[in-house]
Parts: sequence; structure tokens; C-alpha cells
Amino acid sequence: MTRAYAIRTELDATLAELQAGDPVPAERELAVRFGVARETVRQALHELLVAGRIERRGRGTVVARPKLVQPLSLGSYTEGAQTVGRTPGRLLVTREIIDASAELATDLGIATGAPVLHLERVLLADDQRIGLESTYLAAARFGHLEHDFDPTTSLYAAIRACGVEFGSATERIETALPTPREAALLECTTALPMFLLNRRSIDTAGTAIEVVRALYRGDRVAFEAVLTAPGRN
Amino acid sequence: MTRAYAIRTELDATLAELQAGDPVPAERELAVRFGVARETVRQALHELLVAGRIERRGRGTVVARPKLVQPLSLGSYTEGAQTVGRTPGRLLVTREIIDASAELATDLGIATGAPVLHLERVLLADDQRIGLESTYLAAARFGHLEHDFDPTTSLYAAIRACGVEFGSATERIETALPTPREAALLECTTALPMFLLNRRSIDTAGTAIEVVRALYRGDRVAFEAVLTAPGRN
Repeated sequence: MTRAYAIRTELDATLAELQAGDPVPAERELAVRFGVARETVRQALHELLVAGRIERRGRGTVVARPKLVQPLSLGSYTEGAQTVGRTPGRLLVTREIIDASAELATDLGIATGAPVLHLERVLLADDQRIGLESTYLAAARFGHLEHDFDPTTSLYAAIRACGVEFGSATERIETALPTPREAALLECTTALPMFLLNRRSIDTAGTAIEVVRALYRGDRVAFEAVLTAPGRN
Repeated sequence: MTRAYAIRTELDATLAELQAGDPVPAERELAVRFGVARETVRQALHELLVAGRIERRGRGTVVARPKLVQPLSLGSYTEGAQTVGRTPGRLLVTREIIDASAELATDLGIATGAPVLHLERVLLADDQRIGLESTYLAAARFGHLEHDFDPTTSLYAAIRACGVEFGSATERIETALPTPREAALLECTTALPMFLLNRRSIDTAGTAIEVVRALYRGDRVAFEAVLTAPGRN
């Protein structure tokens, strides 16, 4: 057992008495309190930073808010955030029409090279940057959203307003490290573990709606699923 | 766009022509082929390593096998691995009786301080180290498994053999970096992103079966879920 791990229990107890936003005691003070080297405290604080228990604010460190726990469901990010009492927001990064690659064409059920609307947005929760989402939609079906859609609002609500009903989605969840560009947009380092989600949604008639590639900051988001035995609910 | 990202497309094409286990061309050779600095190639290869597309073998680097895609389901690791044609295995790390902490007692529906069987095992797929799983079971109900269970086999099969039927489970999925001990057991560095799963399973009568804390190597495992609209299946 490393010394950093050994003082984690004491640090956890210290943090448990604080509220979100409260300043974390200084490294030097914690080293004296626990009777260990400052380097040991630094390592333990780094672990807590990656785990999302604490976060940098300006030049200091404060206790982080609890993670945004998203249900694994067909609902949108907006609904997931609201369920846990967070205010969702979005910042538009990219809005463009691109030519479908062979893979995207297959997933969207269109011809290779056909026009695709690409929307890339930073996902916010109470002004915190949570994730970076790229959505790809067949322009033949949803191209009007390039102009008729306010990108700071829920895309799922706009799609439903077109009379489209979500049927099901397949979602693959992986871990990833962000590229320098992604890290800059998410205001973190390239060493912070992320969730990488790839989703393909179809409507109730089985026609493709969207392909989504989303990165979520691992220190700010968790996913939760309720699993039931086959035939049970 | 960084230069490392710019050559990723070319590198992906190079890898796509190789089979799992094939050696990856040397950094120097790739730098010449793509007309970039060796440092640029090194960064791109590091990204592919974290993403699980390539892996170190001895002093060389080879194309990795595809990730083990686990369905998010109530099934066991054993069943998930077999579904994708991998041979599951386990290495026993810890087998002990501990006193239930207050939190564990609540989750298992027993008194604080009551005896709990703790099994910690490395999960294998075709002899590759995939994850590290700690299972906690109330000893009053499952204590006989301390001696009557072969830890290299499926624990879920042993639990079912006790006449217990799994009803449902709640699973929380987070990202994490491994501690030095965990990294040593999983034969990786402490900078490799991991999945951290916390699961609590109950039987068909609603009684707690197990609490599980599992780490999965993010370069070797992905999860997949099929999401359906409420009221659909």
C-alpha cells in the first residue's frame, strides 16, 4: 500500500465534513496534520482530482459538486441533467454540412457522399463543462435544422418536433484521453480520463435518426444502469 | 489540429491492413513514410496504445486484438466473455472474511461488523489481464463459498447453484486511474484510463446478493447497451 493511499481515508473524512465549493486545506497544512511528506499529500490530492472529488478554482482547490449521474436511457442529455437537478446548457462549436464517409453513410442509411449536418457542442451543467458532443444527421431529412434550430437548446426536442419518435439506440461506451483540441474545449488536461460514447439511434419505423460521438469528463460524469433478468422489469 | 492527430488517419489505414498480433512498423520507419518527426509518430502511437489499438509485447509493439465488448446485462463476466468468443479465466488475489463497514452492511442488509466474504480476482480473457474484481457477500448466507468454491471458475454459477436467482442489479460506471497496486495486478501503468464499476445485485425476493467493485482496463474493454423507449422492447 502506498502512503498516498494510506492517508486517503483520513482525507476522505476531512472532505466529508466540507460542502461543495469549500476550500480544501493547503498541502502544507494537511502534511502537518497527517504527519506525512508534502509529496505524499500532493499525490493523494491528484487522485482526488482525477476522481472528481475536488477541483481547481482559480489558484485554489475546492470540494467538487457530486458527479452528474446520467441514466443509461434513450432520453437526451437535457433530460438526464434535469432529473438530477442540474441546469443543462450547450455551446455551439461547429455547425456544418459535410459529405458522408462510407461508414457514416451506412449508419445513417444514405449514399456515400450524401450531405450530412454535423453539430458539435460543448455540454454544460450549471455552467460547468461536462462533455463534447458531435451529432450527425442526414441533411435530406434534418437539413433544415442547420438554420431552424437554436443550438443552445435540446436537439432531441427539435427532432421530436419534426414528428420523429425515437425507437431504440445502440450505445458503445469506452474510455479515452482527450486530444489537445478536446481538452481545450473541455478546460482540462490531456491526462484526464474520459468516457467516449458512440450512439446510433433509430426511429420507431427502424430508420436511422442520428449518429453521435460524445466525450464526457470522467471527473464530472457517471453513468447508472438498472439491469434486470431477461423477462423481468 | 495537432500533427499527431493529422497522421492518425494514415496510421489507421496502415493498421487496418495488419492482423492482431502483427508487429507495428518502427517509429523511425513511420516517420520517414509520413514525412514527420519521430516525436510526432511517438505521440500518435501513444494515443493508439491508450485506445487499445496497439499493445506492447516484449520489446516490440503489435496490433492489439479487438476490445472485449461486454453487454451491460445481469449476466456474469464469464458469460459476457464467452459471448464474444473469448475464454474467461480468473486469478485469485485475496480471499478473506472481513467485518462489514457501515456502508457495506447497509448494502448487504446485515449488521455493521457482521462477517463478510471478500473475494478479489484478476479477470482474464485468453490469458490477457482484463480487470480486477472485488466481490463482497454476507458470510451468513454465502460463507461456505470460502472453501467450497473454486475461485478460477464463475462465481455467478456457484451462487446460482445455491438456489439463488438473480433478480436485478444497479450498476454505476465511472472512470478511474489505477493505484500502483492495481496497476501492478493489471500489468499496466497508473496513467491508463480504467472503467470503475460498482454493482449491487438482489435476488428475485429483493434480498441483497452481492456488492461488487470492479476495475476494467479501458484499452481492453468496452461496454455496449441497447436502449429502448419506455414501453418498448
